[in-house]
Amino acid sequence: MSILTLNCRSSSVRYQLFDQEKKEVLARGMVERVEIGDSYITLEAPGRVNCRKESDCPDHRAAVALILQTLTDGEVGILPDAGPIMAVGHRVVHGGENFTRSSLIDDRVLAAVKAVEELAPLHNAPNIAGIDAARALLPHIDHVAVFDTAFHQTMPPHAYLYALPYEWYEKYGVRRYGFHGASHLYALKRGAELLKKRPEECNMITIHIGNGVSLCAVRNGISIDTSMGLTPLEGAVMETRCGDIDPGILVFIMQAENLSARELDRILNQKSGMLGITGRFSRQRDVLEGAIQGDRGCRLALDMTAYRLKKYIGAYCAVVGPLDAVVFVSSVGRGEWPVRELALEGMEAFGIRLDRERNLLGGGENHAALVSADDSPVRVFVVPADEDLILAENTAAVLAGEHPAEVPEFF
Amino acid sequence: MSILTLNCRSSSVRYQLFDQEKKEVLARGMVERVEIGDSYITLEAPGRVNCRKESDCPDHRAAVALILQTLTDGEVGILPDAGPIMAVGHRVVHGGENFTRSSLIDDRVLAAVKAVEELAPLHNAPNIAGIDAARALLPHIDHVAVFDTAFHQTMPPHAYLYALPYEWYEKYGVRRYGFHGASHLYALKRGAELLKKRPEECNMITIHIGNGVSLCAVRNGISIDTSMGLTPLEGAVMETRCGDIDPGILVFIMQAENLSARELDRILNQKSGMLGITGRFSRQRDVLEGAIQGDRGCRLALDMTAYRLKKYIGAYCAVVGPLDAVVFVSSVGRGEWPVRELALEGMEAFGIRLDRERNLLGGGENHAALVSADDSPVRVFVVPADEDLILAENTAAVLAGEHPAEVPEFF
Repeated sequence: MSILTLNCRSSSVRYQLFDQEKKEVLARGMVERVEIGDSYITLEAPGRVNCRKESDCPDHRAAVALILQTLTDGEVGILPDAGPIMAVGHRVVHGGENFTRSSLIDDRVLAAVKAVEELAPLHNAPNIAGIDAARALLPHIDHVAVFDTAFHQTMPPHAYLYALPYEWYEKYGVRRYGFHGASHLYALKRGAELLKKRPEECNMITIHIGNGVSLCAVRNGISIDTSMGLTPLEGAVMETRCGDIDPGILVFIMQAENLSARELDRILNQKSGMLGITGRFSRQRDVLEGAIQGDRGCRLALDMTAYRLKKYIGAYCAVVGPLDAVVFVSSVGRGEWPVRELALEGMEAFGIRLDRERNLLGGGENHAALVSADDSPVRVFVVPADEDLILAENTAAVLAGEHPAEVPEFF
Repeated sequence: MSILTLNCRSSSVRYQLFDQEKKEVLARGMVERVEIGDSYITLEAPGRVNCRKESDCPDHRAAVALILQTLTDGEVGILPDAGPIMAVGHRVVHGGENFTRSSLIDDRVLAAVKAVEELAPLHNAPNIAGIDAARALLPHIDHVAVFDTAFHQTMPPHAYLYALPYEWYEKYGVRRYGFHGASHLYALKRGAELLKKRPEECNMITIHIGNGVSLCAVRNGISIDTSMGLTPLEGAVMETRCGDIDPGILVFIMQAENLSARELDRILNQKSGMLGITGRFSRQRDVLEGAIQGDRGCRLALDMTAYRLKKYIGAYCAVVGPLDAVVFVSSVGRGEWPVRELALEGMEAFGIRLDRERNLLGGGENHAALVSADDSPVRVFVVPADEDLILAENTAAVLAGEHPAEVPEFF
């Protein structure tokens, strides 16, 4: 029996089919250019030639239908029909204040997701379209929503509120929600295993590095703070997102450049971060490569990235208390060693002592690695993570009634 | 011989006359409602009844003229004529990248100040108007510009740049400048005296608390980071300013509330911070009073204020290295003990151990106080500070050719 995971974005859908018993990926791929035109699907399956097929997808429903059709295609497919798919795990970016864990989707849950759509219209709208499509096409199996925000619902008000007019919180829900929650929970669980402790005994800082980057302060196994906020724009330097800036800059630059709010939003999300600094590279691996080869802009981007991580780690140490571990969850792989090296350099007073050799090797593609020195009071782990596998793991847990999901059971 | 200090704001001018030899304040006061109508001046002088006089001030030149006329008035004045005024110290909020220390004003310096006017139009325009007026009225004495930004000009690029399109820095100077520089330098100097060390031997976190709040990370006597940015809006929770927020909130709320950039700017600067959270109080002392009396909104504002300071202290510890002291410079006085207590609570791992009794007493009106425990590796000092006295001290130092000003000589 398999779990299909769907990650629906504005113009693409990522999918993965996971064999729950064998813990194996059976197939994965993307539908690209949904709603844009010239759309196509890719399919990768172990032991097969990768395939790519053009097919018009005017909406997300067509994209989900194309995925099912391709997976069961007589020629390139890997399933005879949709029968072996026992459940679909849907990534849902924003759960607002309604969800503290992954949830089985019914009409009530779907209504609650739709109610917070305006908090993240660019993300939730395609997520909802994907759920609607998959439920229509696969009406007899379970669908699970895995929320980016749910793990962080344990933050106290002094961490999640902003010093803005309080009525904006009451009226629009303007507050810190945080994202990458499933990934931070994954980091906590893997970190706890490596420490041979239970999650609720662990104080950690977990750091998710992918296209987006976020940090989470974990005390006694629950999230007490995180770097992303109402939107995934706040916090660390990211590939194309600015992270923390002086809010006064927005007003200044809108007037200087005569920008609308929408135009500004696009620049902050798509033209800033490492791309903004280097003016050329929007991929972290290209920036790190450039920095190593002596490119000044890339080196600056690396320094800024590591410096801001270091400040967040210091800040979270101050609020978490004595730390067990810093856990990097990364979908990017071993190229990230310079970020970790610079971010954790000179942190001996915090009990953090990296082992340079171990850090250089980093984690393997499928196994976690200890990268701190043996005498480091705080352990530093690198955990490779596949966001699709995390989706599948959460989905299976909900189906099994375990509800470990976003908020640990002890909460 | 005396120094007149002028702090020109959009609709007011604060002034102080300081006897440089006797180190005594001779007089101080405000001109209020400049340019607005119904303007008036207040004058306080030791041993005299406070006076207040209505007088029309359609512009800052009229306000400066009114100050000189009042100081030399036959009835309420305290000088026979302007002769004893040997220099005027002008607060200038934004010096851009041009000034690394307080400077004697000549046409070249004034042109450089005017060149960065658009970086802080609300602040620099009245500052410039005040300089123009005072130079016209007192053409034969020295005028000194004391910049809020100058002390922070030692920050490295990875601390002062934002992860935004780099051309915004090149074209408009969009970067972190920081403010309250004279005040942070004052904290450093007083802290070093109390530590019996030279400033260049000191690692400190200095915290300015007034209407605005900012923190500065000082390594070996120079500023390496600070919490305010391009504008004085970034960083800590302030009386009416929001400090750090998710930049995505601005775009969200402009669309939700149909706000222009200018309207949003006003809300972030004047309706946020403690006022935004409590909905009622814009004075820190009222908020702290309310929190002690059990008001929930006030308690939340206090918790948020202290929590954010704690995170900044942790972040700056991570980048400064082993700390000698945390120095609070405050114009608000001893009512602030709950902020310090909550911000520094549980920071023993950072070597910070407050003495509750000492902290409750705080600093006197005119003397600094040690508020950490005797066994605290990091000392915590509270230094009462009068921003006008800091202006006078900087002005005198420039006149004496000491140039200790914003950047210590050893730099």
